[in-house]
Amino acid sequence: MAPNGTTTVEAPTAVARPRLEDLDLSPGKRVRLHRLLYEYGVGNGTLLVLPIDQGIEHGPLNFFPNPAAKDPEFQWRLAAEGGYNAIACHWGLARRYMEKYAGRVPLILKINGKTNIPSDAHAFSPLTATVADAVALGADAIGYTLYVGSPRQDEDFLQFLEVREQCEKYGMPIVVWSYPRGEAIERKGGRDSLYAVDYAARLAHELGADIIKLNVPVKSAKDADQPKPYNTLEWDYESGVRRVVESAGNSMVLFSGGSKISDEDLMEKARITIEQGATGLIFGRNMWQRPMDEALALTERIKDLLRRFPS
Amino acid sequence: MAPNGTTTVEAPTAVARPRLEDLDLSPGKRVRLHRLLYEYGVGNGTLLVLPIDQGIEHGPLNFFPNPAAKDPEFQWRLAAEGGYNAIACHWGLARRYMEKYAGRVPLILKINGKTNIPSDAHAFSPLTATVADAVALGADAIGYTLYVGSPRQDEDFLQFLEVREQCEKYGMPIVVWSYPRGEAIERKGGRDSLYAVDYAARLAHELGADIIKLNVPVKSAKDADQPKPYNTLEWDYESGVRRVVESAGNSMVLFSGGSKISDEDLMEKARITIEQGATGLIFGRNMWQRPMDEALALTERIKDLLRRFPS
Amino acid sequence: MAPNGTTTVEAPTAVARPRLEDLDLSPGKRVRLHRLLYEYGVGNGTLLVLPIDQGIEHGPLNFFPNPAAKDPEFQWRLAAEGGYNAIACHWGLARRYMEKYAGRVPLILKINGKTNIPSDAHAFSPLTATVADAVALGADAIGYTLYVGSPRQDEDFLQFLEVREQCEKYGMPIVVWSYPRGEAIERKGGRDSLYAVDYAARLAHELGADIIKLNVPVKSAKDADQPKPYNTLEWDYESGVRRVVESAGNSMVLFSGGSKISDEDLMEKARITIEQGATGLIFGRNMWQRPMDEALALTERIKDLLRRFPS
Amino acid sequence: MAPNGTTTVEAPTAVARPRLEDLDLSPGKRVRLHRLLYEYGVGNGTLLVLPIDQGIEHGPLNFFPNPAAKDPEFQWRLAAEGGYNAIACHWGLARRYMEKYAGRVPLILKINGKTNIPSDAHAFSPLTATVADAVALGADAIGYTLYVGSPRQDEDFLQFLEVREQCEKYGMPIVVWSYPRGEAIERKGGRDSLYAVDYAARLAHELGADIIKLNVPVKSAKDADQPKPYNTLEWDYESGVRRVVESAGNSMVLFSGGSKISDEDLMEKARITIEQGATGLIFGRNMWQRPMDEALALTERIKDLLRRFPS
Amino acid sequence: MAPNGTTTVEAPTAVARPRLEDLDLSPGKRVRLHRLLYEYGVGNGTLLVLPIDQGIEHGPLNFFPNPAAKDPEFQWRLAAEGGYNAIACHWGLARRYMEKYAGRVPLILKINGKTNIPSDAHAFSPLTATVADAVALGADAIGYTLYVGSPRQDEDFLQFLEVREQCEKYGMPIVVWSYPRGEAIERKGGRDSLYAVDYAARLAHELGADIIKLNVPVKSAKDADQPKPYNTLEWDYESGVRRVVESAGNSMVLFSGGSKISDEDLMEKARITIEQGATGLIFGRNMWQRPMDEALALTERIKDLLRRFPS
Repeated sequence: MAPNGTTTVEAPTAVARPRLEDLDLSPGKRVRLHRLLYEYGVGNGTLLVLPIDQGIEHGPLNFFPNPAAKDPEFQWRLAAEGGYNAIACHWGLARRYMEKYAGRVPLILKINGKTNIPSDAHAFSPLTATVADAVALGADAIGYTLYVGSPRQDEDFLQFLEVREQCEKYGMPIVVWSYPRGEAIERKGGRDSLYAVDYAARLAHELGADIIKLNVPVKSAKDADQPKPYNTLEWDYESGVRRVVESAGNSMVLFSGGSKISDEDLMEKARITIEQGATGLIFGRNMWQRPMDEALALTERIKDLLRRFPS
Repeated sequence: MAPNGTTTVEAPTAVARPRLEDLDLSPGKRVRLHRLLYEYGVGNGTLLVLPIDQGIEHGPLNFFPNPAAKDPEFQWRLAAEGGYNAIACHWGLARRYMEKYAGRVPLILKINGKTNIPSDAHAFSPLTATVADAVALGADAIGYTLYVGSPRQDEDFLQFLEVREQCEKYGMPIVVWSYPRGEAIERKGGRDSLYAVDYAARLAHELGADIIKLNVPVKSAKDADQPKPYNTLEWDYESGVRRVVESAGNSMVLFSGGSKISDEDLMEKARITIEQGATGLIFGRNMWQRPMDEALALTERIKDLLRRFPS
Repeated sequence: MAPNGTTTVEAPTAVARPRLEDLDLSPGKRVRLHRLLYEYGVGNGTLLVLPIDQGIEHGPLNFFPNPAAKDPEFQWRLAAEGGYNAIACHWGLARRYMEKYAGRVPLILKINGKTNIPSDAHAFSPLTATVADAVALGADAIGYTLYVGSPRQDEDFLQFLEVREQCEKYGMPIVVWSYPRGEAIERKGGRDSLYAVDYAARLAHELGADIIKLNVPVKSAKDADQPKPYNTLEWDYESGVRRVVESAGNSMVLFSGGSKISDEDLMEKARITIEQGATGLIFGRNMWQRPMDEALALTERIKDLLRRFPS
Repeated sequence: MAPNGTTTVEAPTAVARPRLEDLDLSPGKRVRLHRLLYEYGVGNGTLLVLPIDQGIEHGPLNFFPNPAAKDPEFQWRLAAEGGYNAIACHWGLARRYMEKYAGRVPLILKINGKTNIPSDAHAFSPLTATVADAVALGADAIGYTLYVGSPRQDEDFLQFLEVREQCEKYGMPIVVWSYPRGEAIERKGGRDSLYAVDYAARLAHELGADIIKLNVPVKSAKDADQPKPYNTLEWDYESGVRRVVESAGNSMVLFSGGSKISDEDLMEKARITIEQGATGLIFGRNMWQRPMDEALALTERIKDLLRRFPS
Repeated sequence: MAPNGTTTVEAPTAVARPRLEDLDLSPGKRVRLHRLLYEYGVGNGTLLVLPIDQGIEHGPLNFFPNPAAKDPEFQWRLAAEGGYNAIACHWGLARRYMEKYAGRVPLILKINGKTNIPSDAHAFSPLTATVADAVALGADAIGYTLYVGSPRQDEDFLQFLEVREQCEKYGMPIVVWSYPRGEAIERKGGRDSLYAVDYAARLAHELGADIIKLNVPVKSAKDADQPKPYNTLEWDYESGVRRVVESAGNSMVLFSGGSKISDEDLMEKARITIEQGATGLIFGRNMWQRPMDEALALTERIKDLLRRFPS
């Protein structure tokens, strides 16, 4: 649940976020991350990413609030005209729609995914594309969903290793959607618990993520099921965000918007997460589940906010 | 269930279907799709495909209504003399019967399949041929069955990825038989529900299908088990078809005939699906479960219909 | 159960069987099939094959009726002196015993198998040799057991695909032991039902078998469990054989002898199956579960029968 | 259970064992088998092998009776000084201890194994080394454990096929530890039943073993659970041994000593098995679970026995 | 439980540990082990290793006692300034933090791992990096976790074999974290029982470990569940350590510190294990779960101890 409130946001970033120039990276990763961070979008080292992978993950039901968004052209146009740092989508939507936007908006090729039709008890997200596909499409990063704590984590680690090695080979940055999932995490506080998100941040970092997409941790009735000391830990929205950002080490962090919330809550979420050290935001449904003009206007508001946090 | 009715069909296509010239495709895919759409069959950008993979999928029991059809020569002759845009079959029927029809009727090599002897609870369709086999046979597309929402979707995605990459390499178009299957979808409204077919259309599109074969969605007593908003959605035959066609994005859509229905219902199904944006029809049992002369006559009726929808 | 009776057999083959010259085959397959059909054994386009894979499939218990047959030398000598079209065995028996029979009797290298110690509920027959092994041994075909309808059919299809591709590469004919197996088929009439055998014939044909080994279908108390229309179908021995031969399309069919039966029943089985379109017989236990002289005499009787069916 | 008794052993081998010169083998296999049979150990075509793989299969508990044997140096020294035909061990013990014994005692590199901590219900023995490792170490054979009748026999067959193909490539002889195992065989008389051992002998032979290690079959209360005709078969120690040796065809047979028994029983076991056609013995715990001097003395007694059985 | 006591430690090592010069190793392994043993850290043939893989194995909860340690920079600085023989961590922490410490502290690249979110009943630790990664990072060894006795031991053996072969190829030493795990070992005395640790030591040795990381065995209420003779064996801390060190053969042994204990207990553990033949210590949480100055001071105390045990 996003906070509401009336915080003033003149203050600079409360927590220093990783700076590209401080990181030890291969030339190819540096080139592509520089493009994402400084050549597109806000252009000041922050990130605003538009994801359109929900058609695979949730099915077309996410397009009912704004039927125009069912046409992938909608998101490509929004990403380009809104001036996002990148659009994130699967191969089909990239290969068949990017022609007229090629070079105008960077691509994060999402290379694994699954439907949500079967249960998540043993979640695993198989590849839908390769790193070489990303190279061929001129992408500036790949996106990989890691199901942290799933009973199938072994397959996930091995699949990720292959991807990570290919990314090393090609100098392709890795954005990990680091998602706690599976029957085991549900017994230890749940997928959105602080314990779960904190672990997810650290795991993705140790495995080699350049950028980590996280959900903001949420308090719940299951908090007491978390392992010590999380089960009794005192924390609030800000400190929860800060904690998981720190657990990501010198990997950059993106926070997702999740399902649609009010504009003010969304702006607050954006502000707080950036203040607490996140590098950027990845907002999908909150943007494209509204008409184009509204989406562009809200995009501009968020970009205004991000402009106040240069690095 | 196909609608009956007395609609007049002078009206042009209600929903614009994807036009080959508008799509961003590799040269090889463009060559082969051009052949399928404009050089064979009706030749006006519509598709009429004759499938003969039921011997694997259902066994010889489908040949009882017309024992002559048990000899694969029957379908090859029907496809060639009837002037279909393509015949779709597995390797054995292609390699051993196409000699005298080579070049007279395009081949869509079906490259995966399974028997229906075990239950579909964990459906997965293993390869029976490779994309290289399709190239060697001079095929103009491959056919791949994707079991959308099956608990084994991970294996399916990975197998499809291999196929899709090979098709990129060779410029081979992909026709996805996008079929909701498995115990999970049965708990969410069933394989023929609007939710299921709609998801199947979108998934195949995002994964990289060039053409998607769908079943027309059907209302049933299990509709309330579908996720929101499908569980309460108002829709009729036309709008259901249109919805799933839209979910396929700029992939072309073929509708199947399914088990045998009356000629008038079949003609209506053909008319409505084309009007609602489908590119073509893939009718098997409805064609070859009758004597050759009747099958040829019905083929001609359908082609007459398709002639009224040039693109 | 084989019929008894006093049919006269002057009549030509009731059902035309596939003729090598009519088939579209690669040169290598044509060379090797020509050898099997016309250069060895009866030499008139029929086949008489001696299998000795029961040591893997059933264990040494099959050798108790004729302990001399436990020595693989027995079967090699019988195949060579009896003038069989081929012997079928696994790698160990080929590599270690064929030296003195090399070139005198063609080899069908059986390349997969299993013990019958675990249950057949999820039957799958793993490789024991490769197609390249067959080439290296100078074999004229490989033998592959396909467990039709097994819950593990996916693994079987994929393994068979590899084999089939290698056979394409080397011009090696494929003999498929097409056996319905597994818990699912047992619930639908059983492995020897007409439904099961008919499906097995068609499946092997569509997957690319050159020759298909079948068991003669058997009526049983479980016939009503078969899918429609098999569950109520009227048929007799002759028509059952003819039906499954037709389902094999232009693949040739071999019928097995199964466990030992009377000489007259065996001769009747041979006659009827050939009359109904089978290309040949694969008789193992019925031949080598008796002393060498008796086996040679019976072999000669069967060859006499086959001589009356030239193609 | 080994027999006791006072048989005189002047008689030549009761059952002729396979002679190297009679076998059709590749040059590499012939070279290495000649070394094992005639250049080391007794040197008369018999085999005496010292296995030290129990540290993996059973853990260090086998070393309690003679703690000195915990140091692998013990077995290497015993093998070299005792003049064994070969030592059989895993990669770690070969790579790290054979330096000073290199060329003095042949190596059979055991290339698969497992701990006995989990149950044997679904036994499978994974690779611990490759055939190329054996070549690199100058080994004269590899050892492979095949779990006959295990529910995982399919994986075992496929793994063995890879090994067998590599052995063909390099001319490396194969010693199969052919062990009935798994829940299925336990329901059919058990792992040491005549049925089980007889099947194991034949299976290893058909799959391509050059030498087969067997346990002597044992009568038990579960004998009636064996398939016909084993369930009612009359047999004694000698005839049981002879039967399984015959089932191994022209593969050579080694009998194991198993857990420690009295010296006289061990000598009797040695005598009878050799008389009944075994080529040699593989005695581990019976040798190294005693002080070095005793072990060397017993080794000499067994070698004296073997000297009476030249081939 | 670590012993307390007032032993004087003038005595030389009670049990001789393996000396690098006595081992038969490839040049590459010798070079790298020489660096680890003699060129860094204490430099006298002992080892003091700082592990930081707990972020994957346990999650960030291990950083609560000393939040500064959450930043991987903490451990790298401690390893370098404290003069450890090596730091052990996963790829992410190596690739992104070692730049300024490159060449100052050797790297043991931990190449497999898992979260502890799912149960350990079927423990398996998948790869997170390759041996080639270790080479590329200039590492002097790789670390591999082997789950001894897990029901998935077959996958573990096969994965380890691949690693071991790559290490042979590149001359890369192997440190095996040899950990008894899984439901089967829990029924036989538990993961920390003498039986379990003793087996783990021997198994890693036979599979080809150069260095084996063990936990000190612990007595428990489940000791009677161990197999004979462990279930009734008399042993104390010293003899338990000595026993498992001996079971490791001529592989070197490291003992872990485990969770945090008192400084005096830690020093005693260090002294006793080294006296009983261990080559070194791998202490993580006991070191970095305290402020840097304290960690450096304790490091120096342990190094002082190790200086008394040159080899």
